[in-house]
Amino acid sequence: MQKLINHVDQTVRETLEGLVMATDGVALLGSSLTVIRSDADARRDSRVAILSGGGAGHEPAHAGYVGSGLLTAAVSGDVFTSPSTDAVYDAVMSVGGEAGVLLVVKNYTGDILNFGLAAQLAAADGVPVRTVVVRDDVALINLHGDEARRGLAGTVLVHKVAGAVAEAGGSLDDVADAAQAAADGLWTMGVGLGPCTVPAAGTPNFTFEGAQMELGLGIHGEAGVTRTDLAPADEVVETLLDSITAAGDFGKDSRVALLVNGLGATPSMELSIVTRAALNSLAERGIVVERVWTGNFLTALDMPGCSLTLLSVDNNRLALLDAPARSAAWVQAVAPASLAERVLEANVRPRTSSGNRVDASANSAPTTDADRAAASTAAALLEAACAALLDAEHLLTEMDQIVGDGDLGISLARGAKAIRAEVLPGAADRSAAETLRLVSTTLSRVIGGTSGPLYASLLLGAARTLGQGDASEARLAEAFSTAVGYVTNLGGATVGDRTMMDALIPAAEAFASSIHDGASTSTALASATRAAVAGAESTAAMTALKGRSRYLGERAVGTADPGAQAVAIWLAAVSAELNSRG
Amino acid sequence: MQKLINHVDQTVRETLEGLVMATDGVALLGSSLTVIRSDADARRDSRVAILSGGGAGHEPAHAGYVGSGLLTAAVSGDVFTSPSTDAVYDAVMSVGGEAGVLLVVKNYTGDILNFGLAAQLAAADGVPVRTVVVRDDVALINLHGDEARRGLAGTVLVHKVAGAVAEAGGSLDDVADAAQAAADGLWTMGVGLGPCTVPAAGTPNFTFEGAQMELGLGIHGEAGVTRTDLAPADEVVETLLDSITAAGDFGKDSRVALLVNGLGATPSMELSIVTRAALNSLAERGIVVERVWTGNFLTALDMPGCSLTLLSVDNNRLALLDAPARSAAWVQAVAPASLAERVLEANVRPRTSSGNRVDASANSAPTTDADRAAASTAAALLEAACAALLDAEHLLTEMDQIVGDGDLGISLARGAKAIRAEVLPGAADRSAAETLRLVSTTLSRVIGGTSGPLYASLLLGAARTLGQGDASEARLAEAFSTAVGYVTNLGGATVGDRTMMDALIPAAEAFASSIHDGASTSTALASATRAAVAGAESTAAMTALKGRSRYLGERAVGTADPGAQAVAIWLAAVSAELNSRG
Repeated sequence: MQKLINHVDQTVRETLEGLVMATDGVALLGSSLTVIRSDADARRDSRVAILSGGGAGHEPAHAGYVGSGLLTAAVSGDVFTSPSTDAVYDAVMSVGGEAGVLLVVKNYTGDILNFGLAAQLAAADGVPVRTVVVRDDVALINLHGDEARRGLAGTVLVHKVAGAVAEAGGSLDDVADAAQAAADGLWTMGVGLGPCTVPAAGTPNFTFEGAQMELGLGIHGEAGVTRTDLAPADEVVETLLDSITAAGDFGKDSRVALLVNGLGATPSMELSIVTRAALNSLAERGIVVERVWTGNFLTALDMPGCSLTLLSVDNNRLALLDAPARSAAWVQAVAPASLAERVLEANVRPRTSSGNRVDASANSAPTTDADRAAASTAAALLEAACAALLDAEHLLTEMDQIVGDGDLGISLARGAKAIRAEVLPGAADRSAAETLRLVSTTLSRVIGGTSGPLYASLLLGAARTLGQGDASEARLAEAFSTAVGYVTNLGGATVGDRTMMDALIPAAEAFASSIHDGASTSTALASATRAAVAGAESTAAMTALKGRSRYLGERAVGTADPGAQAVAIWLAAVSAELNSRG
Repeated sequence: MQKLINHVDQTVRETLEGLVMATDGVALLGSSLTVIRSDADARRDSRVAILSGGGAGHEPAHAGYVGSGLLTAAVSGDVFTSPSTDAVYDAVMSVGGEAGVLLVVKNYTGDILNFGLAAQLAAADGVPVRTVVVRDDVALINLHGDEARRGLAGTVLVHKVAGAVAEAGGSLDDVADAAQAAADGLWTMGVGLGPCTVPAAGTPNFTFEGAQMELGLGIHGEAGVTRTDLAPADEVVETLLDSITAAGDFGKDSRVALLVNGLGATPSMELSIVTRAALNSLAERGIVVERVWTGNFLTALDMPGCSLTLLSVDNNRLALLDAPARSAAWVQAVAPASLAERVLEANVRPRTSSGNRVDASANSAPTTDADRAAASTAAALLEAACAALLDAEHLLTEMDQIVGDGDLGISLARGAKAIRAEVLPGAADRSAAETLRLVSTTLSRVIGGTSGPLYASLLLGAARTLGQGDASEARLAEAFSTAVGYVTNLGGATVGDRTMMDALIPAAEAFASSIHDGASTSTALASATRAAVAGAESTAAMTALKGRSRYLGERAVGTADPGAQAVAIWLAAVSAELNSRG
């Protein structure tokens, strides 16, 4: 049994201890399994007390609904077992005063008898008591009639309605009548995607053959009324709502509140998908959903699955559902909207400053002879880099299969092909900076993994610097350094980490140093290339701390880092092309 | 794959659609996977925008934290996959204005690169951007160093801190510094009790051999750093807190906030048990827990298990955690208490009226000769009933094995023995009413199932009427009718339902009718007995609608209802005894 519990016979008490220790304004009643508002005694002659409960295993129900505007107390039995008459009687006598007590009881024989007898005992002691039995179950109505309908998750909404009337100072009859009216308009049906495991039993209570579901099940791990193949969520919701709307006679223009309830082990993701399906389906039926809740409200231990509840509402009942309340598990209702009402178009502002993106309407075409020459050179150098990376695809793949995940050669080749197809064709009509920016966004889009963002960052840094004005040697050196700085900032690696930075950082430093010493761009680039090659070679002796080889430890030693090798390869090609152009 | 989803490739989008349709003040950004505050555009020059996100599968994170006082937007990727740079960039540009944007990023390579590059792009466009990387993971610190620590559930608390500073009008540096400081004091460790299933994969990502657990796991279904035998919840919590307090250097008098986070399929019951254990353990360590949250805050799809997070707090950070906020998934923090502070002793008021219960100090002893005679008669009749039911144990068991669950004979015999042991010895010193009340509470306590409460109710009704004064024949008839009415009220059955009521109701009517016609008590009781016997016999021809035989349908026909038969048996014995006495 995979459960985070201690001794099986302490499970319920420990659950309630954890709840009260982490909830304001509630307490356990002595050593019992009853959770009570801390101010219950002070209120009992002025406010009707609302008491509910039943077997445990439905957490957060019912103790999670003890609080202001909700229950005054919740009496728990052991897992899936009614509390004793004495336990209920003691709770009633601890909250019951002149204002009286409403018992909200789910329709199970044990609960009916024990809560009922306690009510008779308390009435004999002079406490005004009324009882509302909740039977929101849709599934059993056709099989066993109205009396057989079980109390399910909708019970929580009866708590809320009753609690709101009591908090407002309503009389016992006011409170009980409002609760009874809500119970009369309440319809629930559930679907189970698996069994649950009672702690004392230790094994699941049923098993499925393949992908199946139980439709119309209760909250005690019992099988439903129909076992069928699992269907897509939208179909399951449609089936549940067909039954619920038929049983509750909900037609066009009916006004309802919708409770989407997880049965204990249902992920939040699935509950949201069910909520979406239910809201869409109800809208198609012309049923007006005034309020919605999604969450785990009344569960069946660790059962996967959910139930849907519809409660008929008018303005008065809506106000009761919306009235302030606070407890461990209650959440405020939301007025839902259609998807169309909840989609915003992106409102992206025009670029404000350095222009690393240029709108289609912006004039980025080269206008001077120098600009045209720079654009042409940039295109040629880029084509050389692409050709070199395509040539090296096999080599880089082999290296990366030894020290990485083997996709570097393919990734960079994909990038080179995209640049040839999407960037180079119009490069003569763009500024060099704009071409590099396009390379950046293209690589970001077509190369996955880490290489795409890192190369995109490199090109973005270069484009930003080049876009700031002249194309002097000093500017080129600044662009190289800035580009490498962008990558450092993004990836966090530096020299010695066995990554592409072992080639890039020495190359940028060598370039800047050569330019500073008065060398031509061509000479400086040759110097940068030598530094990159040496840097890449040095990685063969390194243990990886970052990047593709970091999980290999010593096993990477002897093979150079293919990311650094790739830098050396394209830099050499760019240098050779620049040199050949004179 | 047992999931409530539709097409696998629509799972994330549909999850977010369900969320925004059922949440106030948020919207989806176009057809993307980004959820944004509806008022984000109006706020972006006056308030710092907080943006977070990452792969899906962690619901309700991160979209569930978009709202006032929390995130401005959340960008989602596919399940367990970082969103693209473009998606993050578009979100940043949709929320970023003069006040700037804080990115809260969990420490995973894909998120670091894609959020990081988007930040560089947005900065290039003139939007002030800062980034805080959350690495609250404790488990990997010893294996791979600080840099390897993953971003886990504690990230949600960084959202809250950042959101509070932003909502208050703090500058980008104010917001980012507060978030970074929170991230620096944040430590999380998790335990997995089973695998999770990625929708696109369709099968669980690991399996256990027997009852095991993974300690120190992340939020992507990966195995933890240690697999070990499952331990009791208190021990598991101790292990997690040992690691967390050591890593975070939390010692005596440290002030912390505690986040108990379910991993997706963990029942509420278990999270409460874990919360209890954590609060107790931290108290023993002298660590002061200022705030606590329990729930599913940042999950790993449908994984069972939980994580614990400790965040170092001072008064300033507490105020930020407590600041008003509203989103789909945020819950207000609670200041926890020890169990001792959250136990109330029952405050049961003294009995006020009709005295069906009498305190030990109250004088219920018979004081007149008539009272003494009544007390003596009541004791004798009771003994006769007990003897008859003990004689009939075997017969009733055989009948109930045919039409019920077979325990009726044993249950009533247990009741009879308890009456002999606990009620009869002092009966001469009590009023008849008080004796019947004691029978009621005794039967309620010792007989389980439905018979206990129903007989307790019968005796309570009789006791209440007899306690009201004289013991005239008319009073006795009233007591019989009232008693039967109590049972009808409690159990809901009537004549023809194939229950004990088929004997009780005709018996009470015959008794009242005889008394009304001037018969003696003894004669009236004989008449009642004949009616009960006839009523019990009539049940043999009935199909059950209520009670023990209702699931048998026609199969019960031919055997009388043993509950009705039991009534005829003890009533005959009482009648015979009364007749013999007078």
